[in-house]
Amino acid sequence: MRKERDYLGEREIPDNALYGISSLRATEIFPITGEQFDEKFLWAYFMIKKSAAILNKELNYLDENIANAIIKATDEWKMLIKHIIVDPLSGGAGTSVNMNINEVIANRASQLIGKEIGYIKPIEHVNMHQSTNDTFTTAGKVAVISRLRELIEQVIILQDTIQKKEHEYYKIRKVGRTQLMDGPPIMLGQEFGAWADALARDRWRLNKVEERIRNVNLGGTAIGTGIGAPKDYILKIVEILRQVTKIKVAKADNLIDATQNMDVFAEVHGLLKSLAVNLFKISNDIRLLASGPNTAIGELILPPIQIGSSIMPGKINPIIPEYVIQLSLAVFSHDSLINHACSQGNLELNQFAPIIVHYTLKSIKFLKNSCFSLAEYINKIKVNEEKCEENLRKSVSNLTPLINLFGYEKVSKAIKEANYDLFKAIELLSKTENISKDEIIKKIKPEKLTKLGF
Amino acid sequence: MRKERDYLGEREIPDNALYGISSLRATEIFPITGEQFDEKFLWAYFMIKKSAAILNKELNYLDENIANAIIKATDEWKMLIKHIIVDPLSGGAGTSVNMNINEVIANRASQLIGKEIGYIKPIEHVNMHQSTNDTFTTAGKVAVISRLRELIEQVIILQDTIQKKEHEYYKIRKVGRTQLMDGPPIMLGQEFGAWADALARDRWRLNKVEERIRNVNLGGTAIGTGIGAPKDYILKIVEILRQVTKIKVAKADNLIDATQNMDVFAEVHGLLKSLAVNLFKISNDIRLLASGPNTAIGELILPPIQIGSSIMPGKINPIIPEYVIQLSLAVFSHDSLINHACSQGNLELNQFAPIIVHYTLKSIKFLKNSCFSLAEYINKIKVNEEKCEENLRKSVSNLTPLINLFGYEKVSKAIKEANYDLFKAIELLSKTENISKDEIIKKIKPEKLTKLGF
Amino acid sequence: MRKERDYLGEREIPDNALYGISSLRATEIFPITGEQFDEKFLWAYFMIKKSAAILNKELNYLDENIANAIIKATDEWKMLIKHIIVDPLSGGAGTSVNMNINEVIANRASQLIGKEIGYIKPIEHVNMHQSTNDTFTTAGKVAVISRLRELIEQVIILQDTIQKKEHEYYKIRKVGRTQLMDGPPIMLGQEFGAWADALARDRWRLNKVEERIRNVNLGGTAIGTGIGAPKDYILKIVEILRQVTKIKVAKADNLIDATQNMDVFAEVHGLLKSLAVNLFKISNDIRLLASGPNTAIGELILPPIQIGSSIMPGKINPIIPEYVIQLSLAVFSHDSLINHACSQGNLELNQFAPIIVHYTLKSIKFLKNSCFSLAEYINKIKVNEEKCEENLRKSVSNLTPLINLFGYEKVSKAIKEANYDLFKAIELLSKTENISKDEIIKKIKPEKLTKLGF
Amino acid sequence: MRKERDYLGEREIPDNALYGISSLRATEIFPITGEQFDEKFLWAYFMIKKSAAILNKELNYLDENIANAIIKATDEWKMLIKHIIVDPLSGGAGTSVNMNINEVIANRASQLIGKEIGYIKPIEHVNMHQSTNDTFTTAGKVAVISRLRELIEQVIILQDTIQKKEHEYYKIRKVGRTQLMDGPPIMLGQEFGAWADALARDRWRLNKVEERIRNVNLGGTAIGTGIGAPKDYILKIVEILRQVTKIKVAKADNLIDATQNMDVFAEVHGLLKSLAVNLFKISNDIRLLASGPNTAIGELILPPIQIGSSIMPGKINPIIPEYVIQLSLAVFSHDSLINHACSQGNLELNQFAPIIVHYTLKSIKFLKNSCFSLAEYINKIKVNEEKCEENLRKSVSNLTPLINLFGYEKVSKAIKEANYDLFKAIELLSKTENISKDEIIKKIKPEKLTKLGF
Repeated sequence: MRKERDYLGEREIPDNALYGISSLRATEIFPITGEQFDEKFLWAYFMIKKSAAILNKELNYLDENIANAIIKATDEWKMLIKHIIVDPLSGGAGTSVNMNINEVIANRASQLIGKEIGYIKPIEHVNMHQSTNDTFTTAGKVAVISRLRELIEQVIILQDTIQKKEHEYYKIRKVGRTQLMDGPPIMLGQEFGAWADALARDRWRLNKVEERIRNVNLGGTAIGTGIGAPKDYILKIVEILRQVTKIKVAKADNLIDATQNMDVFAEVHGLLKSLAVNLFKISNDIRLLASGPNTAIGELILPPIQIGSSIMPGKINPIIPEYVIQLSLAVFSHDSLINHACSQGNLELNQFAPIIVHYTLKSIKFLKNSCFSLAEYINKIKVNEEKCEENLRKSVSNLTPLINLFGYEKVSKAIKEANYDLFKAIELLSKTENISKDEIIKKIKPEKLTKLGF
Repeated sequence: MRKERDYLGEREIPDNALYGISSLRATEIFPITGEQFDEKFLWAYFMIKKSAAILNKELNYLDENIANAIIKATDEWKMLIKHIIVDPLSGGAGTSVNMNINEVIANRASQLIGKEIGYIKPIEHVNMHQSTNDTFTTAGKVAVISRLRELIEQVIILQDTIQKKEHEYYKIRKVGRTQLMDGPPIMLGQEFGAWADALARDRWRLNKVEERIRNVNLGGTAIGTGIGAPKDYILKIVEILRQVTKIKVAKADNLIDATQNMDVFAEVHGLLKSLAVNLFKISNDIRLLASGPNTAIGELILPPIQIGSSIMPGKINPIIPEYVIQLSLAVFSHDSLINHACSQGNLELNQFAPIIVHYTLKSIKFLKNSCFSLAEYINKIKVNEEKCEENLRKSVSNLTPLINLFGYEKVSKAIKEANYDLFKAIELLSKTENISKDEIIKKIKPEKLTKLGF
Repeated sequence: MRKERDYLGEREIPDNALYGISSLRATEIFPITGEQFDEKFLWAYFMIKKSAAILNKELNYLDENIANAIIKATDEWKMLIKHIIVDPLSGGAGTSVNMNINEVIANRASQLIGKEIGYIKPIEHVNMHQSTNDTFTTAGKVAVISRLRELIEQVIILQDTIQKKEHEYYKIRKVGRTQLMDGPPIMLGQEFGAWADALARDRWRLNKVEERIRNVNLGGTAIGTGIGAPKDYILKIVEILRQVTKIKVAKADNLIDATQNMDVFAEVHGLLKSLAVNLFKISNDIRLLASGPNTAIGELILPPIQIGSSIMPGKINPIIPEYVIQLSLAVFSHDSLINHACSQGNLELNQFAPIIVHYTLKSIKFLKNSCFSLAEYINKIKVNEEKCEENLRKSVSNLTPLINLFGYEKVSKAIKEANYDLFKAIELLSKTENISKDEIIKKIKPEKLTKLGF
Repeated sequence: MRKERDYLGEREIPDNALYGISSLRATEIFPITGEQFDEKFLWAYFMIKKSAAILNKELNYLDENIANAIIKATDEWKMLIKHIIVDPLSGGAGTSVNMNINEVIANRASQLIGKEIGYIKPIEHVNMHQSTNDTFTTAGKVAVISRLRELIEQVIILQDTIQKKEHEYYKIRKVGRTQLMDGPPIMLGQEFGAWADALARDRWRLNKVEERIRNVNLGGTAIGTGIGAPKDYILKIVEILRQVTKIKVAKADNLIDATQNMDVFAEVHGLLKSLAVNLFKISNDIRLLASGPNTAIGELILPPIQIGSSIMPGKINPIIPEYVIQLSLAVFSHDSLINHACSQGNLELNQFAPIIVHYTLKSIKFLKNSCFSLAEYINKIKVNEEKCEENLRKSVSNLTPLINLFGYEKVSKAIKEANYDLFKAIELLSKTENISKDEIIKKIKPEKLTKLGF
């Protein structure tokens, strides 16, 4: 155990721990929530520290040896993150995690140059010219952009998977349904196509996110005026960060605005949630189309990827669609959370940055998981062509084209009198309208109805 | 046009208008949102004014003639509410509507005793010993209790309707479904019974609401300390209100707490939303059970209460279940809104009382509408017994009892090999297990399976 | 009273009513919610009917006299909307309102050419080649774009108002605050500037909305396959609508997708809510900066635009910021509602289109109101320069620049020992660091600190 | 590595792993979300398995040796939970976790009696007479009740802490504030008292939760009809569970209802969120009362429990109130999530039970954390009595009692003319009303105003 001291007194810290007294105190006052930092967020934070050290060395604000040690330590981020012990939802606008990272880097850097812990200082050296208020949000934005690229890849895979099915099922005709009731015919490929085209919009949206969120307030320090930082540092730090991370961040035009306003997170999450809308809809449609399989729609065949029920043998359940819907519901709840947290910032800072950044990254993860699982799943889905055909033959909506012949009222009446039996309805119309059944049947060929217009 | 003046200057008011300059200004600064006051809320507000006048007269704070005129005016509330012109979502913690009511009563009271408008004063006389801060929330609570009783009546009617169906369908056996997939058999009556029992919990909850919300801060004036009001008035005003409204309100033990804390509205809405949960579930189940009717489940038959589609003749849609789900979704959104608005009160007052009260009453209305429409609808729903029986016969879940005979694995395997065809699976098992098909069929009688246990 | 009949039986309708039996039935089965149609939505719906009549005439599907009568009737939309009696939240995916409009137009058109009511048919003539499913969403999108333009105008006015203040207050220095605690100095103009720059992002976002929502499914009829409509009509109807409405709608590439997927509404509302985030933040900041005025921050002076309290004389409250926050909270609740409603569409249609469209338009209205009221209000806000200066002088955050001189620890210690009294802290530092007080004071000139960097 | 096989094929499992092939597959199809099971939930699940083994042994359905081994294994739950590898948000209504627990117990039980893994069977033995559908929700309810008791303890501690402060600050008078503006005087103790009384309501609510959620569907198996389970088992299993867990669960009257309806979770969370409302309000009030400290309200003194800012020395921030508000916002988002997930169950089961149970337990944890941290914090808060007194002396709201003397209009006018300066206003009134300043001052003694009424 080593001893560290701050103005509140002295505390013991395990010898092999690289965090310091600030981190320790944070764990005591903020009980763990069970939430975990996104690794990319921590990576981004370490890279900010690295960028600052590089620039502070270059501009001669920081001793070269110390700077080099700090830089070297930040490169070990992957091994160091186990020393990040504070909770992601700690209050204080992120001060706890900033201090935790400062302490870990300072202590590791001291080790690296063979000095005692305490030689390199968390605030004076590692945090030089920075504030929690500019580093935290910047780390959040870098992490979001980085994770977003992973998400986009998964969306592409999902869309491709669905489009493959679209082509595969191009010629399978089936009944369409509106309000869950039998409607006009449609091709199964068209149904997959509608899902794919919805995802195409998501790709467009997600590709826009980067440009919306790339303006960062790094260099603005506490409130965006850059207090405590020199001008030459402020003007160049974002460029260094861009080089270090390969993420195309840019210095915000108005650093004060960028420090206090979090509306871009609400905007970005607003784009993310649109993906959740589509994933939910697709998943729910799969549940419906595969329902039964014997006593409901049963047109799709679910892949048996897990035991379905511990009590009903042979049961296969739509477990991945359910998983995706659960995660979509969670994304919607994050969306609401972020709206409120973004709006409740006060004056020069949004004190709720930790929860905003955390839940944005969580949504990206949930969506990535969803796309991955759903693509694997849809790939294995099969179609019950017989059932599609059988259902189509049974649907009275086949009679829709007849309204151009006999008028809406008459067709409607026949259907009701036939008690929704297609063939009885044809018979009735054949009698009342004096036309042969065959002729009627010729007019209502479903394949015709799925082409655009008549 | 008559002229009125306040410290901001002079304004013209239509001669036949009973509102005054404060109300007029409120309409100019708060553009209309399209939202409308619940009539019962206005009634409650008028009754508070009446109660204050009665008590102030009794305690000799208010001239008898003036008091009597005010009392008489409040009894005309139904005719006067057309003069309430301010928007329900006006800011200012409700001051605008309190002033609007004060002005309308004062002016009408002046008229009633043949005096010029302006003779009886909105603040000095009508508002005597009151503040917006105690009258507004109190009016809200009185209105909620009053509307709640109407809601409970509708819930009872809905539950009764469903129970009638429960008894009617007691003997109709059918397939059960979990995760939308065919499951063990169940009686249709049992399905209705599960809905009815969920509503029984709602009745219990709603009956508890009154006791949770009856403590009011009337008499506490601005911040609960009763500033500006005499002690004898404070101690008695709630009793008078109780007599006047027949609503069993009680004086809150801690008027300061009751003025600033709105958690009871969050709690009460938390009880209301549970009803929305059940209405949503029931409505969605109806949609599913009636889906098709030819190509999906089709076990229930929807009543044709409106033309279903302007393009597909004969189509009947589950329009009431959809309506109820839409309103339930709205209730959930109100719930979230109320959570946030209740939590964001500051210090001695919750400045967002207007939106809290408004949306609580709106939820009650939406729920009342939902119960009414759904009861009417369920009453007209019919069952397709043949379809129930046919579906039941097709479901492989009928084989569940066989696991006690052959083990989970074997039954499961047979089902898969038979490609989910019930009769093929029986054949397979008959062969592999060396048992006659008839014997198997005897073991799996569905009616047995709906009784509790074996 | 005239009599009308449908397959459910006969009903009486008031003679002067232009709606018909379908509308009447809808009002009976869907009790009124108190919600009201946005006038622009109804306008858009009438214009769709007009466009269809124009095109159906042109293509010779519709008799010229009938078409002309329909066109003429739709031009009277403003007078006819009082005959739209169905509730905006009616279930059935919008069938009720489509039928109501069909009936009103048909009946008015019959009148216009001197025929009996019933001569021109709601479905056969007015609804020719249309379905609720393509007309409803299209009307919603046209209305959204139209209302959006009004909203953008108000956002511009608000931003201009704030920028005017930004320039006016350019030289007023004051204390900044993070986490509600005294922080580094800032210029009052910079605070207004941060608000204005946030709104600049909203203008950008709102300008993007039109392009996101302009693709409509008109012509796709029931499920996007155009069933019941001829090809030449389908290909041209959107162009006619564009001419008639002057709204730049475009035919969606995939009409099936555009009929069933509502994710663009979630996306668009995601952009709208970002504006609510900023309006909430600005309003809350105004509340804080004007708080007191004597015993809190008191740096801004609220305009007295209404009596503030019926019990505390002279009290001025931040009523417009409160109003705006209430409406922002409502917008957030709509946002959540729309996420869920958009995600819960099933298969070929989103049956919850009515609630989605209704609440999107409601949000636009609430935001427009908010911008209007807030601009008027901010325009009248004044600044208490003395208080700004006095507060600035009292803040220990003035000492921040000294950390470059004495290190973080020492300055921190001095502040704590001085019990947060700025001048005592200077005295202490002067002693311990052996430097004159004047020299210290020279180093901490606040005006320096608001410039970018040192 | 050992090999296991199911109908999908063979897989390798690490030798020291107690989970089996079902668990392994679940981790592959449901990518981890980062969410973690509440330990108490897993405990409850193990206890259900224990109870079933006890009863199945007693009723001679299960071999005594096997039963005893299972019972022994469940007692090792704490050591076994590291083998629970499936994600809490797995789809499939909880089947994955049920199977994971079944496998771990079966395998451990086999070990315990010196048999090979595979000897005791997950489904046939451990899961005997159970389904995921009855065990999962029951485990959830047992865990909720158990965690709730811990929460209640923390609420009591928090309330006690606040009441101690209420008594301590009984005589400290200060200005009250409504809508953030200076209002009538109040005692600091009264402010703490209002918070304490709000929490008293929460205690009452939380104490009601147990009774609302104690009815469980254990024994109902798949859909509540008890399919696959014998009657004697069904009738007794809940009693055994009660004995094993010491949690007072009861068999639901209608097992079908209890299997498919999750409204009690929505109800219970509705009670939990009311606590979040109060914690948010209290935390926000602390933020406001301590704001500054020099340039805002500054009446409370925040405890320095952590370094406040890495750039502004000496800064102390309201980090715990911020932490609590963040967690409250999260609880509100869970509330919305649970509303939707509860309402979207279908027919005989709510397939979203996993997310419902998970987030309910998460809310309880967040609230427990919040109460703990807030109590510690409030305990250390100090009051700046001078500032309280100084603020009180400056507030024009002191003049409120004068309206009974001079009328609302005159006092209001004086305040405005004096530009909100209390002493200037007194002077003005003294002149216009011809009364000495001293006499006025005598009438407005603040201590009088905090007593109920005059």
